[in-house]
Amino acid sequence: MSVSLDSVREWDQKDPLANFKQHFALPEGILYLDGNSLGAQPRAAKQAVDDTLDQWRDELIKGWNQGWFDAPERLGNLLAPILGAKKGEVSVTDNITLNIFKLLGYVLGQDTGGRRTVLSEGGNFPTDGYIAQGYCRVSGSEHRFLPEGGDLAEHLEGVAVVVLSQVNYRTGKLRDMAATTQLVHDHGAEVIWDLAHSAGALPIDLNGSGVRYAVGCTYKYLNGGPGAPAFLYVHGNCQGGGWQPLSGWHGHAAPFAFEADYTPASDISRFRTGTHSALTYAALEASLVMWNEVDMQALRAKSLAMSDLFRECLADIFTAHGIEDITPIANQRGSQVSLVDTQNGYAIVQALIARNVIGDYREPGLMRFGFTPLYLSFEDVWQAAQHFREVIESGEYRSPKFHVRGAVT
Amino acid sequence: MSVSLDSVREWDQKDPLANFKQHFALPEGILYLDGNSLGAQPRAAKQAVDDTLDQWRDELIKGWNQGWFDAPERLGNLLAPILGAKKGEVSVTDNITLNIFKLLGYVLGQDTGGRRTVLSEGGNFPTDGYIAQGYCRVSGSEHRFLPEGGDLAEHLEGVAVVVLSQVNYRTGKLRDMAATTQLVHDHGAEVIWDLAHSAGALPIDLNGSGVRYAVGCTYKYLNGGPGAPAFLYVHGNCQGGGWQPLSGWHGHAAPFAFEADYTPASDISRFRTGTHSALTYAALEASLVMWNEVDMQALRAKSLAMSDLFRECLADIFTAHGIEDITPIANQRGSQVSLVDTQNGYAIVQALIARNVIGDYREPGLMRFGFTPLYLSFEDVWQAAQHFREVIESGEYRSPKFHVRGAVT
Repeated sequence: MSVSLDSVREWDQKDPLANFKQHFALPEGILYLDGNSLGAQPRAAKQAVDDTLDQWRDELIKGWNQGWFDAPERLGNLLAPILGAKKGEVSVTDNITLNIFKLLGYVLGQDTGGRRTVLSEGGNFPTDGYIAQGYCRVSGSEHRFLPEGGDLAEHLEGVAVVVLSQVNYRTGKLRDMAATTQLVHDHGAEVIWDLAHSAGALPIDLNGSGVRYAVGCTYKYLNGGPGAPAFLYVHGNCQGGGWQPLSGWHGHAAPFAFEADYTPASDISRFRTGTHSALTYAALEASLVMWNEVDMQALRAKSLAMSDLFRECLADIFTAHGIEDITPIANQRGSQVSLVDTQNGYAIVQALIARNVIGDYREPGLMRFGFTPLYLSFEDVWQAAQHFREVIESGEYRSPKFHVRGAVT
Repeated sequence: MSVSLDSVREWDQKDPLANFKQHFALPEGILYLDGNSLGAQPRAAKQAVDDTLDQWRDELIKGWNQGWFDAPERLGNLLAPILGAKKGEVSVTDNITLNIFKLLGYVLGQDTGGRRTVLSEGGNFPTDGYIAQGYCRVSGSEHRFLPEGGDLAEHLEGVAVVVLSQVNYRTGKLRDMAATTQLVHDHGAEVIWDLAHSAGALPIDLNGSGVRYAVGCTYKYLNGGPGAPAFLYVHGNCQGGGWQPLSGWHGHAAPFAFEADYTPASDISRFRTGTHSALTYAALEASLVMWNEVDMQALRAKSLAMSDLFRECLADIFTAHGIEDITPIANQRGSQVSLVDTQNGYAIVQALIARNVIGDYREPGLMRFGFTPLYLSFEDVWQAAQHFREVIESGEYRSPKFHVRGAVT
């Protein structure tokens, strides 16, 4: 390949993040390039979950006063610095779908100058549009799509709120969050950012970007475990609003007063709904404690270097075999490489999986490879590229077994 | 006491459910009468959670195709026989608050003959009213309370949906589910039953009672673990309706087709929202497998015998000390004893907790003691009553330390 194994081993020796790999429980012999879908397991997660199981067994109901009840805000505060947010601005709760619904209701429940339209992004991860449609049906608001690749400024007329992803889940394209937020605000609208593919993938500065509302995910780059709870961010200046519509007892101003009528809490805890799982918060908390040690600028540098290394190793293969590299340029890139081969993309990913090189596939024709600087080395990336080369050059992806479609997540 | 220790030991020897106690990991020296709030831990839960942690570590993203993704329906089918429901009628998903919102939207999204009023129950667990209020605010429907103790038939005019608890969380009062459902339907309204305090506490026959919609909880009597996911039931004949408003990608007819527009799944999976935690489902599944071995008629008989034993042992104490026993008669009782002492109730519960006898307290003045037939013996109940007697007779509840109010769950 165009980069030698010796040289990438040198990079690994100089890598300031190399020490983090030992904090992960990684299976032997796997090259895992799907941390953009489900992150690997921090070693500390098992102990944290076991401790919580013991707490349930021994402390029973008292556990709720020993850290379980306060977990959404405590974990939110652990997450805040990773997002460029302040203490009290982040809650870890429910899932992204539900958190978007809450924020839509919270924003549209305030004065929007008569605007009732919700815009969501075509080509975005579809749940953002699905829940916007659900919100609009129940509330009598109007939903529209921003066409994929369309100019946002041209679609904001009459729009109250737009839901945008900072990093597109397919292409890995990174939006300029500060400039886009300013543009939306200048048009008299509000924006809810979805950070599913950016939180833990690159430095984020919500406060510095003028962002008022955001949601995101903790089970991808943040290694919270399968189905770990999502997060929700509301800027401190925007917490004086009214209800969010999923008004459950945990979001009440006095949840244990058991009052008949709902009164929202005055702080970020108003975005809670009902009882949350202590076990899944325990695993996530163990990961977030580790993440608080990460230099996010070093993470970004390594992420870009890894994705460029992978592409550089394979540039000749892409050209020779008609594989389109749609990975954005560095300052517009998340932490994934995106390749398109509508004919063989699925089979190539399956052939790589058979070699224990895990990427994923999304219709139509998209191969995604995620780069997670905490538990991948440059040598891992080089070896993965070598497997990719061999899969193509040997023609093993042509085997019929790799063309059979199964359940894909 | 009026019942001898020898006689309750004899009852234990004849108890057909006695064998279940060994399936629970119970802390030494605790008499736990709060299983109505958080159930004890089945021994199988730890292994199940550890296995899922290993699966996350070793299988990574593949875990979603190895049982994680299908968990809401698989666990729903495990739960169905315990509720008198059929396969495909129950989903284990999200929490009760959210599930009530979904069902309100699902029912009100259908033809209600122009009715838009949601009735919820005064004196019910408050989250049912809070979320009904949230739903009504966002949808423009009207919310009213059924006054506590009010005659339901007199409050159904113009009502589209009423949310009722089968067992009241304070008093333990059991409603006649079949008769009440018939009454509501006869008045042209629909009823959503909340089974939080009845699922796993007594035999339930949703199909036989003509019930179309219900929600409930798995972390109380069903031992799913702190914050385990809730369930939602929709009768098979009522699954032809439209959207539920919390329309996320997991409820889509084709979640992995990533289509732009939402199309609800045609079956119970339409009530999913987004990604759920594999860890918490694992703990609950271990418990539900055990629950499928339980004879629910034997459970009911033991539950009533235990609550009567506790009250009989203490009847003279209640009379002498002005403690009001508001526990309903047997055929109107859930699985708890409810006692009122507005002056000393809080302190009595605290003094009992200091003796490792765990009940709980709810303002104003309510002491609750839950009876869980799978892991309590008659001797446990007798010993708990003996402690109660000693706390009262010794006057130790008068100690100032037991009157200091702290966080109560």
